[in-house]
Amino acid sequence: MSIRIGIIGYGYWGPNLARNFAECPQTALGAVCDLSPARLEIAARLHPGARLFSDWEEMLRDAALDAVAIATPVGTHFEIARQSLRAGKHVLVEKPLATNSAEARQLIELAAEKGLTLMVDHTFVYTGAVRKMRQLIADGDVGEIYYYDSVRVNLGLFQSDVNVLWDLAVHDLAILDYVLDERPVAVSATGRSHFENRPENIAYLTLFFPSKLIAHLHVNWLAPVKIRSALISGSKKMIVYNDIEPSEKIRVYDTGVTFKPDDDRYQLLVNYRVGDMWAPQFDRTEALQTEVRHFADCIAHSHTPITDGPCGLRVVRILEATAESIQLQGRPVDIIH
Amino acid sequence: MSIRIGIIGYGYWGPNLARNFAECPQTALGAVCDLSPARLEIAARLHPGARLFSDWEEMLRDAALDAVAIATPVGTHFEIARQSLRAGKHVLVEKPLATNSAEARQLIELAAEKGLTLMVDHTFVYTGAVRKMRQLIADGDVGEIYYYDSVRVNLGLFQSDVNVLWDLAVHDLAILDYVLDERPVAVSATGRSHFENRPENIAYLTLFFPSKLIAHLHVNWLAPVKIRSALISGSKKMIVYNDIEPSEKIRVYDTGVTFKPDDDRYQLLVNYRVGDMWAPQFDRTEALQTEVRHFADCIAHSHTPITDGPCGLRVVRILEATAESIQLQGRPVDIIH
Amino acid sequence: MSIRIGIIGYGYWGPNLARNFAECPQTALGAVCDLSPARLEIAARLHPGARLFSDWEEMLRDAALDAVAIATPVGTHFEIARQSLRAGKHVLVEKPLATNSAEARQLIELAAEKGLTLMVDHTFVYTGAVRKMRQLIADGDVGEIYYYDSVRVNLGLFQSDVNVLWDLAVHDLAILDYVLDERPVAVSATGRSHFENRPENIAYLTLFFPSKLIAHLHVNWLAPVKIRSALISGSKKMIVYNDIEPSEKIRVYDTGVTFKPDDDRYQLLVNYRVGDMWAPQFDRTEALQTEVRHFADCIAHSHTPITDGPCGLRVVRILEATAESIQLQGRPVDIIH
Amino acid sequence: MSIRIGIIGYGYWGPNLARNFAECPQTALGAVCDLSPARLEIAARLHPGARLFSDWEEMLRDAALDAVAIATPVGTHFEIARQSLRAGKHVLVEKPLATNSAEARQLIELAAEKGLTLMVDHTFVYTGAVRKMRQLIADGDVGEIYYYDSVRVNLGLFQSDVNVLWDLAVHDLAILDYVLDERPVAVSATGRSHFENRPENIAYLTLFFPSKLIAHLHVNWLAPVKIRSALISGSKKMIVYNDIEPSEKIRVYDTGVTFKPDDDRYQLLVNYRVGDMWAPQFDRTEALQTEVRHFADCIAHSHTPITDGPCGLRVVRILEATAESIQLQGRPVDIIH
Repeated sequence: MSIRIGIIGYGYWGPNLARNFAECPQTALGAVCDLSPARLEIAARLHPGARLFSDWEEMLRDAALDAVAIATPVGTHFEIARQSLRAGKHVLVEKPLATNSAEARQLIELAAEKGLTLMVDHTFVYTGAVRKMRQLIADGDVGEIYYYDSVRVNLGLFQSDVNVLWDLAVHDLAILDYVLDERPVAVSATGRSHFENRPENIAYLTLFFPSKLIAHLHVNWLAPVKIRSALISGSKKMIVYNDIEPSEKIRVYDTGVTFKPDDDRYQLLVNYRVGDMWAPQFDRTEALQTEVRHFADCIAHSHTPITDGPCGLRVVRILEATAESIQLQGRPVDIIH
Repeated sequence: MSIRIGIIGYGYWGPNLARNFAECPQTALGAVCDLSPARLEIAARLHPGARLFSDWEEMLRDAALDAVAIATPVGTHFEIARQSLRAGKHVLVEKPLATNSAEARQLIELAAEKGLTLMVDHTFVYTGAVRKMRQLIADGDVGEIYYYDSVRVNLGLFQSDVNVLWDLAVHDLAILDYVLDERPVAVSATGRSHFENRPENIAYLTLFFPSKLIAHLHVNWLAPVKIRSALISGSKKMIVYNDIEPSEKIRVYDTGVTFKPDDDRYQLLVNYRVGDMWAPQFDRTEALQTEVRHFADCIAHSHTPITDGPCGLRVVRILEATAESIQLQGRPVDIIH
Repeated sequence: MSIRIGIIGYGYWGPNLARNFAECPQTALGAVCDLSPARLEIAARLHPGARLFSDWEEMLRDAALDAVAIATPVGTHFEIARQSLRAGKHVLVEKPLATNSAEARQLIELAAEKGLTLMVDHTFVYTGAVRKMRQLIADGDVGEIYYYDSVRVNLGLFQSDVNVLWDLAVHDLAILDYVLDERPVAVSATGRSHFENRPENIAYLTLFFPSKLIAHLHVNWLAPVKIRSALISGSKKMIVYNDIEPSEKIRVYDTGVTFKPDDDRYQLLVNYRVGDMWAPQFDRTEALQTEVRHFADCIAHSHTPITDGPCGLRVVRILEATAESIQLQGRPVDIIH
Repeated sequence: MSIRIGIIGYGYWGPNLARNFAECPQTALGAVCDLSPARLEIAARLHPGARLFSDWEEMLRDAALDAVAIATPVGTHFEIARQSLRAGKHVLVEKPLATNSAEARQLIELAAEKGLTLMVDHTFVYTGAVRKMRQLIADGDVGEIYYYDSVRVNLGLFQSDVNVLWDLAVHDLAILDYVLDERPVAVSATGRSHFENRPENIAYLTLFFPSKLIAHLHVNWLAPVKIRSALISGSKKMIVYNDIEPSEKIRVYDTGVTFKPDDDRYQLLVNYRVGDMWAPQFDRTEALQTEVRHFADCIAHSHTPITDGPCGLRVVRILEATAESIQLQGRPVDIIH
């Protein structure tokens, strides 16, 4: 029997969730909720079988719904998710899980108490490219990881309630949480709003890890070109991940540098290795399709989602520390786990 | 009558200096000095008219030389430049001018005292692309500058005496000094060495300015691909500067965002402008040729070089503050001018 | 009152037609026809209001339909279009209009006789990029046109009934018909099938025009990378049209060469001009949306479509001559208009 | 003892030959000849040990010279090479070997008679990239070769004595001669001059081979962008060769299509394979350095050069047939070997 889903929020992202839940054989789209009558009209045209609501609390009273997917502004995630869990619905919530870690913790506890699935929509984790990178790292092909450097910039929609970090950096923090087996211990961040009474539209953050690993993110709503790329450098291989590239999103370079520390003449110590490049194929399934099926599987078999509540909480904790560091012009702030 | 130049250091950069001084109609290559007999042999083949020295102090005693160009390791710049000025030679010294600001100040004072030209080889300042960007900014075409974001990475030669900042960031600091009319007031920087007893091979720095302008540099000796690009965003136009691109190094985007602060409904406040892109032509003369002629002109007419001693000092001061900030994991450090 | 459309053929392209007719305010999707029950099931899910047919002749008896859009294999275009016109339906037929010019002429005559709109789905003509190029040429900005050179290659679906020319070259022939005011007079073409009993999978054709203009197309189903680009060179400007490029599909180069024929020393005759590059913005509306509205307008106001029957015939005539030239290993074949 | 070389022609290419002969340990630069005193002055500055001549016949009387390298306009190749061989000098002649096959044959016979080395400067054959491609094909990695498609275009120097084919297509014909083990049997070519009394500035040629292999070249002096790329497609692998790309000039795609001819339903016959991409490293030595050493080795050990006279003749024969086909607007012309 298929799991009936209600979508709350049918703006930019909601229609993608709706389409994927409609197409997934294990789920059915039962309802759509949005404040805007115009948005509901579009939903009606594309999904004539779904009930329509303008009030999400009313929708939660629909006993036929097994689960909800929340795609509303960040500031509303906590309250909607909380009431949904209380109403006995499994919950998929858009990233970030909540606006602070206290809220995130409450949702985790409530879901555990009720025995319900709580999953965060960290979409990139479900792409074939990111899963391929995780596998390359897990298999030891990359060696010891030296750094992760990401640039995620474009002329983006200025959000009113969150800054560019909560909008864009969250993607990289989710990817890092998934592909690395280390957690960051401190962050130094800088950022700037260029417009009166607006949150930061550009930000940079460096994450420090227990090992020599360093991660750096550049997120920016005010760039003339769209860039979605990351460098991952390890002792054995280096990866260039370019999400804009249509065909070869992942390139693996058999390139590096080694030092011979025993030698006493410094010129001879450094050995450069410039080797072949290799662009592996990977699963091209739409990320949301993979994610929606995973959500359905987790509900059906009481499995823990890959991007579960604690994962969402870890990302929120880093964002909180980052906000504090930006206020202090880069002074490092510890990330407490 | 042509100015006779002696080159001190004939390793990677020295041959370029030698070739340009040999070709420049206002100068003549009088001497080459290097510790390595093999390097001197190559110099002899290419520049049979130049005297050869293995000892720079001996070379400085050659009364026929009017000026010297110093292309030795950074740690030796100060002492060689100081002795050269004392010997009455005009001096062109490779970037950075010295390893600390006290040394830089001494060289400036000594040159002033002796009435000699002291110029720093900030090569990028003499490229047509950077001069074009300066002009676009000076003419007001770009509007109020919001940010400068640079990425300068590759699998580079690990230097033993300086870290990646003193090797690569110095280029962007020189460009910033030239194209902007503001000076940074503080810096937050992070970095990491991934190898035992080696200076930092990756670093990030954010420069804070009196206005809303923010500048950020990513410099890296351990990247699988070579990137030399910068984004400059202003209230009117945005520039993408890609030094690797063979033909269109500078792209100007008539693209941006404006807010209407008087409106009370936030959704209507933001206006995106996606307009034409334009890649202007610029002077393609080799930078070193332009620079070498400028050095000769400054000597001949007692002009102040564009990249004079005080300019070299400003760059060194930022590098000093940056080093301190890296030690403090990003804590901001004031830049005192 | 909206025009009711029936779609015949719901395979690769039909769903795009269906979606655009459903969204267009002047049209309504009345019916969908396909031989495959699985395809009809998908249509039913996405367009619950449309009647479903597995027999197109039966569908043509549906008096409520004003027009049909035909997206079936090329070999069936003629018969379906003919019966549709006979049944009094306006017709939009996928490219190419028919498999030979005799058929194309018959359809044109029949449509004229019946007073019905006959339009060919030359989709690229309705893209903002191609319309921008037409305007640049029409306004005289490009000057006298020297050549059009197109590469349209990828690892494509091998079609069983037509060769790569009838599948891919048709796009460029339609673009040429639209952007130029000259018609080709002869063609020399070469091509090859690399597989037993298969039509050509790679082909090259040169079109000769009355002026000095030359056009060349490379179409290929067996390429490792997808390329969709064209060079258009004129006496004043040159255009690079790259349809894969996400943001700057059209680049205009103020670049060229001029000769001074009076001068007697040949070295001085040639003047190269390397000037600015400019990437103009253009309408980003989905081509099919523009096309579908144009079809509705033509029906409502009895206007002649931009890509009318005679336009479709001109393209078919060139394809016929091309096929003959390929058989003759490139021997030129006249194109009779 | 080193082989003494005289360079005839010190314009665009001659200085590169001179530099490489000067640096090569097996050769010495003995003389430089050019009609222009200004060019000789530059040669004198860079190569003070070389004798200077303005008359090549006089230079040939210099008994100290063992060999000459000819870098003069194409129309003079034959006469200079002939006299050089008669004077007992080994000869390296820039591409193409001569302006027609009768001349080429004479030079081959004369060299054989005299027991002298005659080598054609088909530079690309000596690049690491082309040698890598040859090896990939020879090892059977690419499988049966289906096609070679090359685009070699830019805003080039209009030559007065030869058309774009003799200037640019010669490169690809030399590459084809080297990497394939089949020889073309016929050619169909088209081309156009856009300027009064000028040779063709754009041309296209298709080469037919005994097997299913087809080769096509697009050469063009009037393009706004520089393109130097080729697609090589085989039954097992496909290669993209991009000579402009700084780091990954060769990309090998494990991509293709297979047919199952036994199956009777055509839809199931086609199998696409989209696999990994791989960019192998190759020797980065400057091509001219490799070539100059090969020339010296061939002289010293009486070896046959890779690009010997018969190889130069084969290329000239194709160019002759091509010229004839262009006159006939693409009519195929046999290539007689």
